[in-house]
Amino acid sequence: MPFQNEIYKSAFSVDNIIFGFDSDTLKVLLIKRKEDPYGGQWALPGDIVKPTEDLRTSAKRVLEELTGLRDVYLDQVFTFGKVDRHPRGRVITIAYYSLINISNLKIKAASFAEKVMWKEVRSVETLAFDHLKIMETCLARLRQDLKLRPIGFELLPEKFTLTELQRLYEVILEQDLDKRNFRKKILNMNILNTLHELQTGVSHRPAKLYSFDPEKYKEAMEKGVIFEI
Amino acid sequence: MPFQNEIYKSAFSVDNIIFGFDSDTLKVLLIKRKEDPYGGQWALPGDIVKPTEDLRTSAKRVLEELTGLRDVYLDQVFTFGKVDRHPRGRVITIAYYSLINISNLKIKAASFAEKVMWKEVRSVETLAFDHLKIMETCLARLRQDLKLRPIGFELLPEKFTLTELQRLYEVILEQDLDKRNFRKKILNMNILNTLHELQTGVSHRPAKLYSFDPEKYKEAMEKGVIFEI
Repeated sequence: MPFQNEIYKSAFSVDNIIFGFDSDTLKVLLIKRKEDPYGGQWALPGDIVKPTEDLRTSAKRVLEELTGLRDVYLDQVFTFGKVDRHPRGRVITIAYYSLINISNLKIKAASFAEKVMWKEVRSVETLAFDHLKIMETCLARLRQDLKLRPIGFELLPEKFTLTELQRLYEVILEQDLDKRNFRKKILNMNILNTLHELQTGVSHRPAKLYSFDPEKYKEAMEKGVIFEI
Repeated sequence: MPFQNEIYKSAFSVDNIIFGFDSDTLKVLLIKRKEDPYGGQWALPGDIVKPTEDLRTSAKRVLEELTGLRDVYLDQVFTFGKVDRHPRGRVITIAYYSLINISNLKIKAASFAEKVMWKEVRSVETLAFDHLKIMETCLARLRQDLKLRPIGFELLPEKFTLTELQRLYEVILEQDLDKRNFRKKILNMNILNTLHELQTGVSHRPAKLYSFDPEKYKEAMEKGVIFEI
């Protein structure tokens, strides 16, 4: 196997699966690669980890370059390291996933990307490298975590209606949920603030707005409440 | 930072957290390191990934050298890559955890170990490198997975009583469980075979023996049953 340069003798990269939710669809941020291998193809954003960078620092750098965002949800998912996964040599990659609220967000192509775009997760059919598999693994993790932890709120604007929250769960889990049951579960955990505000700009009767309260969540967990959707 | 040899310019290793359960205690397999750094100290078993090895293959090799076991539960947990985690250079490590039934199991020191022993997880206070943190991360994953998937059975002999199964959950989760509730949950999922055998060698009234049935589990999941303890 030909090695182009020293770093590829054995290197590691990070790849970021950045999920966004757009009222009715789950999206993922993709970049068009500048350089070979796979130049000109769509891929997950990622980069080689610098010698002086912790893994998470590296993932944060990639995320910030593309979105300008710093303090967003970011978690490591899985490390992919098949011997032949990179055509240039042995490169293993550590996948991170992020959840961001995409309303009013500007994205820009970074040093390692020619273009950047949001694409509906369901319509992604091919990606460079083993990135399709990486995306699918991260999607499975997202679905699991969504049921266990209050991470869904990261994908919504700060103020949301219960219908919007339920829609988020339904779209990501790809299953319909019973409205009464869903509301009961969410409200019984006592982790939301009921805002004295109503939804605006809708043609139907405006619904109540809520926000997630991390302090209430912490208290609930300490009392032994189990997060469960 | 001094590099001793080429491979340490940027290398990756696997570390295996091998959990075993011994009727009343959760144990972890530790090795006494042969070589510096940390020569003579207790550590998690692990090794540098060979250029021709997939990550999982490497983790399987380490596990087999120590236990002689091949087809046991093995899952990747997390990759640790702080810049300064290895005194010899940049080495990131991919942690895998295994669950094995330790009754009648012989362990032996491998090429990378001077000694090998089982130690109760709760009594492990120091380990070489960042291995204590790695062990704790894997323990947290074990606790989460135990509630979501039928992995607890991997730690038990093939035939077990419901009391033994409950005890396993209680020891690992460090919480008491209501006997009636536990039995109801387990039996209602319909994933066990009731054996026409009783426990032997006990002074109290012998209890019924059960075994886990992967086929029944698969059927239950297809029917929409949710694994939950």
